Amino acid sequence: MSNPSILILAGDGIGPEVMDEVKKIITWYGDKRGLVFDVTEDLVGGAAYDAHGVPLTDETMARAQEVDAVMLGAVGGPKYDVLDFSVKPERGLLRLRKEMDLFANLRPAQCFDALADFSSLKKDLVAGLDIMIVRELTSGVYFGQPRGIFEENGERVGLNTQRYTESEIARVARSAFELAKRRDNRVTSVEKANVMESGILWREVVTAIRDAEYPEIELSHMYADNCAMQLVRRPKQFDVILTDNLFGDILSDCAAMLTGSLGMLPSASLGAPMANGRPKAMYEPVHGSAPDIAGQGKANPIACILSFAMALRYSFDQGDEATRLEKAVEKVLADGVRTADLMGPEGGTPVSTTEMGAKILAAL
Amino acid sequence: MSNPSILILAGDGIGPEVMDEVKKIITWYGDKRGLVFDVTEDLVGGAAYDAHGVPLTDETMARAQEVDAVMLGAVGGPKYDVLDFSVKPERGLLRLRKEMDLFANLRPAQCFDALADFSSLKKDLVAGLDIMIVRELTSGVYFGQPRGIFEENGERVGLNTQRYTESEIARVARSAFELAKRRDNRVTSVEKANVMESGILWREVVTAIRDAEYPEIELSHMYADNCAMQLVRRPKQFDVILTDNLFGDILSDCAAMLTGSLGMLPSASLGAPMANGRPKAMYEPVHGSAPDIAGQGKANPIACILSFAMALRYSFDQGDEATRLEKAVEKVLADGVRTADLMGPEGGTPVSTTEMGAKILAAL
Ligand SMILES: CC(C)[C@H](C(=O)O)[C@@H](O)C(=O)O
Ligand SMILES: CC(C)[C@H](C(=O)O)[C@@H](O)C(=O)O
Repeated sequence: MSNPSILILAGDGIGPEVMDEVKKIITWYGDKRGLVFDVTEDLVGGAAYDAHGVPLTDETMARAQEVDAVMLGAVGGPKYDVLDFSVKPERGLLRLRKEMDLFANLRPAQCFDALADFSSLKKDLVAGLDIMIVRELTSGVYFGQPRGIFEENGERVGLNTQRYTESEIARVARSAFELAKRRDNRVTSVEKANVMESGILWREVVTAIRDAEYPEIELSHMYADNCAMQLVRRPKQFDVILTDNLFGDILSDCAAMLTGSLGMLPSASLGAPMANGRPKAMYEPVHGSAPDIAGQGKANPIACILSFAMALRYSFDQGDEATRLEKAVEKVLADGVRTADLMGPEGGTPVSTTEMGAKILAAL
Repeated sequence: MSNPSILILAGDGIGPEVMDEVKKIITWYGDKRGLVFDVTEDLVGGAAYDAHGVPLTDETMARAQEVDAVMLGAVGGPKYDVLDFSVKPERGLLRLRKEMDLFANLRPAQCFDALADFSSLKKDLVAGLDIMIVRELTSGVYFGQPRGIFEENGERVGLNTQRYTESEIARVARSAFELAKRRDNRVTSVEKANVMESGILWREVVTAIRDAEYPEIELSHMYADNCAMQLVRRPKQFDVILTDNLFGDILSDCAAMLTGSLGMLPSASLGAPMANGRPKAMYEPVHGSAPDIAGQGKANPIACILSFAMALRYSFDQGDEATRLEKAVEKVLADGVRTADLMGPEGGTPVSTTEMGAKILAAL
């Protein structure tokens, strides 16, 4: 049997720096735990645009379809702001999500004990926080047709279409219920059914799936505006949050910020099972390309490293190894090791990106 | 000259209780400051449905078009959850917004000194907070056509349309710039131009209006997901936030929660000037109908009272009287007078809805 394969798309800004640390960890797993991966690398985002004039080439797209998992760094930067919509770095990322059909985006918002002081929220509201946001990632207003800017009655009109089919809602709902089964058995489904018909259908389908297939799960429904409010007010009330592409974009960033550092948060984007039984999958840190600190050795590699832990768990069936890696990160944090973004009033040992990577390797 | 006119639509849940306190304040202004208003009352939401089978009758709608200002309490309750979309209490509110063409929804998020401990955020992050959110209220995905639930390829599809014309964007942008001129001269315009064409048009039009008409205003652009994050991270960075109907719904609730109590926050929804020079206008608290505490004398009337202060300022050109009312509220809070929602660990004098109203009247 051939080794499992990983395609690394480090992208722009701090993407390459944080991914360098992940590569060392992948190597460690091969050397020390007999988990050998076939790793290839390619370009995405602005880096791909600079080399090829598009944010993702057809060749890279085809390769992403073949591997067992894609590890993505980050895309974008001010240099590319002037580019046309169709070739902006983000389009590369959105093409990967859409063509790989990665419909379930898992965004854990966890607060690490060692960093609870870091949140802008009061400590007791976030200590021990552990939310899993499941965001639909391949439909909704991100991809709905018609869309564009049109001329009408002598002026321009900007148009986008929010569109969800029953089957699109059903499959991501199942992902959320499956996750809830291994957690606290609670799902909060979020939409604006009081204002949008797409939200009414969302609520109906999610309820029907629960009733028919997951009667043991406690399902509640919440409007998106109230959810934003409740995340700030009492975030620990949530277990799994299930929502659409656009609401998920906003609410997961809000939840991420509750934990105190974006530099800590991983994500997994999963599709249907491939022939080998593994899901189509892409893993990426929630933080962006952070062009302001790129190339200075200041970036925190933990979000990207924890994204690889998610790959171990969801793509490679190595839950124990994933936990090993997560525990190594926790230990390093408990020891007071801190990249610049984690330096708070209580001090700690300031380290660079590579030093943080080395400490985590040492703790493994 | 006839007296300025106010239509009171107290609505459902705690709406009538909090509005009762506003009525006493309106009377006080007539008796003590010579500001006599012609006040009439009518039904909206579930209350209108119970009486007439619709959440807003044509007669009430016509009356709302004629008065100088509408004061709205709150709509909705679990009793009405089973109703069809078309007659839900919310439709009454949305019809008022749309037919009165109240395109600019002003939602101040202010943190009262006496209540800074109340926020879930650390005190130094919110003390002195003063953001003005300007939300477009009559277009976007709330009203765009086509919409509905359709049958397609053997399954149902939920559809909504996000639609903005140049002139719709321009007029609400002007409202935001005008407000910024009387504040800190800064506007942050929020969309998802990296993903949605309607956001691209939004950004272009807002920029063009600034360049042509408000060169002195500092304009910046932010994606909606990042804005949710920045509101939690460092809310005091904002002065005026300008955004569309759906993003405004979510972000204003998030901002509201930062201040610690929803029971404190007013809003104004303004349209074009009428023949008498006053804008079409509706004023309402940001909080909802809170059915769980309705009828128990527990509701906080301050948000509704401060909504009347906004009416004094924006409809009746009585900025000084608005400030007088706001100062009275601040004084009562500084004295430790607290409705149930404001009772924190530091204690205070617990009062009912009517007692809070009486204290504010006494402080006037
Ligand atoms: C970069 C951007 C297109 C993307 C999105 O809007 O989905 C990002 O915000 C995210 O959440 O992954
Ligand atoms: C009640 C509901 C229709 C309304 C909205 O979504 O606009 C409310 O959430 C608001 O913000 O005023």
